[in-house]
Amino acid sequence: MKWKPSSDSHLTFHEQIVDWMKFRIESGDWAVGTKIPTQRQLAIQFNVNRSTVQLALDELKADGLLQSKLGSGVFVTNISWNVLLNKTQPNWKKHIDSSIHRANDHTIQLINEYEQYNHIIRLGTGELSPELLPTKQLEQSLKEITLDAKSIGYSSPKGNERLRRVLCDYLKRRGIQSEPENILIVSGALQALQLIAIGLLEEGSVIFHEEPSYLSSIHPFQSAGMRMHTVMRNHQKLAENLKVFKRKRQSIFYCVPTLNNPTGVNWLLEEKKNLYNICKELQIPIIEDDVYHELLFDHTLPTLKSLDKSGQVLYLGSVSKTLSPGLRIGWIVAPSPVVERLADIKMQTDYGSSALSQEIVAHWISTGLYENHLKNLREQLKNRAAFIENILENQFRKIATWNKSEGGFYIWLRFNKPIVNKALFLNLLNQNILINPGYIYHSGDSHHIRLSYAYASLAEIKEGLHALLLLCNHE
Amino acid sequence: MKWKPSSDSHLTFHEQIVDWMKFRIESGDWAVGTKIPTQRQLAIQFNVNRSTVQLALDELKADGLLQSKLGSGVFVTNISWNVLLNKTQPNWKKHIDSSIHRANDHTIQLINEYEQYNHIIRLGTGELSPELLPTKQLEQSLKEITLDAKSIGYSSPKGNERLRRVLCDYLKRRGIQSEPENILIVSGALQALQLIAIGLLEEGSVIFHEEPSYLSSIHPFQSAGMRMHTVMRNHQKLAENLKVFKRKRQSIFYCVPTLNNPTGVNWLLEEKKNLYNICKELQIPIIEDDVYHELLFDHTLPTLKSLDKSGQVLYLGSVSKTLSPGLRIGWIVAPSPVVERLADIKMQTDYGSSALSQEIVAHWISTGLYENHLKNLREQLKNRAAFIENILENQFRKIATWNKSEGGFYIWLRFNKPIVNKALFLNLLNQNILINPGYIYHSGDSHHIRLSYAYASLAEIKEGLHALLLLCNHE
Repeated sequence: MKWKPSSDSHLTFHEQIVDWMKFRIESGDWAVGTKIPTQRQLAIQFNVNRSTVQLALDELKADGLLQSKLGSGVFVTNISWNVLLNKTQPNWKKHIDSSIHRANDHTIQLINEYEQYNHIIRLGTGELSPELLPTKQLEQSLKEITLDAKSIGYSSPKGNERLRRVLCDYLKRRGIQSEPENILIVSGALQALQLIAIGLLEEGSVIFHEEPSYLSSIHPFQSAGMRMHTVMRNHQKLAENLKVFKRKRQSIFYCVPTLNNPTGVNWLLEEKKNLYNICKELQIPIIEDDVYHELLFDHTLPTLKSLDKSGQVLYLGSVSKTLSPGLRIGWIVAPSPVVERLADIKMQTDYGSSALSQEIVAHWISTGLYENHLKNLREQLKNRAAFIENILENQFRKIATWNKSEGGFYIWLRFNKPIVNKALFLNLLNQNILINPGYIYHSGDSHHIRLSYAYASLAEIKEGLHALLLLCNHE
Repeated sequence: MKWKPSSDSHLTFHEQIVDWMKFRIESGDWAVGTKIPTQRQLAIQFNVNRSTVQLALDELKADGLLQSKLGSGVFVTNISWNVLLNKTQPNWKKHIDSSIHRANDHTIQLINEYEQYNHIIRLGTGELSPELLPTKQLEQSLKEITLDAKSIGYSSPKGNERLRRVLCDYLKRRGIQSEPENILIVSGALQALQLIAIGLLEEGSVIFHEEPSYLSSIHPFQSAGMRMHTVMRNHQKLAENLKVFKRKRQSIFYCVPTLNNPTGVNWLLEEKKNLYNICKELQIPIIEDDVYHELLFDHTLPTLKSLDKSGQVLYLGSVSKTLSPGLRIGWIVAPSPVVERLADIKMQTDYGSSALSQEIVAHWISTGLYENHLKNLREQLKNRAAFIENILENQFRKIATWNKSEGGFYIWLRFNKPIVNKALFLNLLNQNILINPGYIYHSGDSHHIRLSYAYASLAEIKEGLHALLLLCNHE
């Protein structure tokens, strides 16, 4: 499908490639600053030798259209337009640099980029391995689903009503009392945070969280102009701290009390009660991000939401960590006025979530397929956790510490020495190994890695950890 | 699934209902200001007589927990909490009122709300009628699709690669040259606007558009702090106006040049060339919203994007108007740096669109199912347009004017007298008829209605227009 040089042309391959690249630059597709694909990728796309690609690139560099930057690749130069013609093009770079939303942190952009490639060993990915996804059963359930026209039209603002009813029932087992009107279907928990940021908080609001924090690796609140403030739930002056930093501003407390991301920690019941009582007194709403709950290995735990008698807790759930991230289905449980407000904004943002995905999730939960799948999944994750812990025990005991996993995906590995910096990240990436370094969850952290046993195969985990160990010993 | 009073209880039905409602208020689910469902809806939910519901409501009103507001329903009073207990709850209303995103216009909120009810005749809905949706074929294609684990995991930032390749090919027929790297898959065109607003424009940027405008009925740019500015493409001083109002600020020009929403108008080729040249000279990027293109009845038209030699035009498409809005799949065609930037923000917003929906769309377009469906759909819409035009011709000729439809969903009906105000909207709603009044597309317009022949059944259209006519003659 992609363009290739043709053997019917009167031009040589390398001349055709030069013309094609000039056209891309001229048309604005490869604007100033665009990083062009690697020689290897281009050689594959064009079905030519790398030397042919190199010849073409050299010519364009000599013309001043392209430029190599040491160690980071080949880029379209900022004089390329003048070289080609004296034409006017929008200055996209200027547009982007001055726009509202923050770019992802560079390490996270690299993670997003390299997660696309099959040859990469992913030691930190917060996602189920392809072999753990119930692909065949999902395919089977597609065959069983009956669509009606209503279910493929625009969904009602709060989402598919059947799914909301099914969820009410499902969440009861977790001590959460709700009615369908208290549930908003969203495209994953991240979108829930986005909606809360723009729909419930004024600019300059204070977001309290504990670090390390998943929130430090994403920016829904920061991009909406909120201030992040780190507090620790066990600090004896927690209430005072919240009061002082909140002052007269609006605020919200974000937490992942069950199988925390990235630490894997479960809060004690006492800690939950304490936080709830303090926040209630100070009228600080709480976001309970509970997307890992189903993955507790041995027993369930009471949610903060189940303690909530005052409509204080906004509860987030999702099937992305358990069934399939590709469905893009999550939910918010909240008081009705909150649900109505967020539904109104969701309608203004994307007119609702995929109706098809909502049907599938309702089908899986209501038929018990989901519960059965979860049983099996927990078993497999537990085995994977044991596998990785065994390697750690044998090889990392002298240089690092960690807690035994109680569920979910992660082990928050702490190195005794502060060796986890961007250089280590890039060094491993150079060996096709991708890690999630602690500093993306807590700026300045140089001790931790969020290891995930959910994604890579056991052989890959072994190989990846071995390479990591060699690097660490080398430090 | 929903709660119902039980006949096993030692309490009467109405006592159980009172307790249940008190619990809802107490728990914060029915916070201050919540509008509670109608007596009729509650009677259905509880499976009791309306008189039982009324008894319960009367008791709660006497207690000061509920309050009727004339003509708008029954609400939770602002002293309800004091009445129940002296407890602290978050003040959600204050949160909502001071937060960042604009609420939908009240008329639009009512439209969103009433579109959920089956008994409403929807004369303005911009959506295919259930009978025009290819529900059975979609169900059939679910059975044919093979999933692989990769396709149900998190999607790559730009979206399913196969779909992007299929779209490159598909868009060639419309004169649009692109590579997969120039395409970003989004959850519908509205999300594309949202991403552009926060990803390409600084606060205070100027958004140019023609009014009436779809953009006036939604607020992605306004909520991001941009200024809307109305210009007309045929104004002889268009270039000067753009220059004056842009000044040194960033700006973008939004347009729907093919089957405009709400007017149905198609721009002339000369108008497109003229706008493109002016915007190119002034370095104003253009958003070409082209979601109705496939619904041109008789012949295709050149897109603005096909004239674009400078990477100036951001082109939006979608299957929401043609195949199924519930899939939530659309796309942006743009220069690579723009696609990369918006993909980065999309990853931060919702981690991509439904993988399942993307698979389905790729399947429909690549197998030709989509093209076949469109042929049939255009035929049916053409018949519907003729039906509504026939009624207009026979009954509205003396009081209104309109253009014959060339495709899409809409007729922009202009009444000679300025009778289209909120009172008319509410009056019709009272008769269970929903219209899209012109003022939601152009503040202050009191002459127009956006009629849609796409949604309501022919019998409903006839009945609805009859009621409208009676009201108009009454004015």
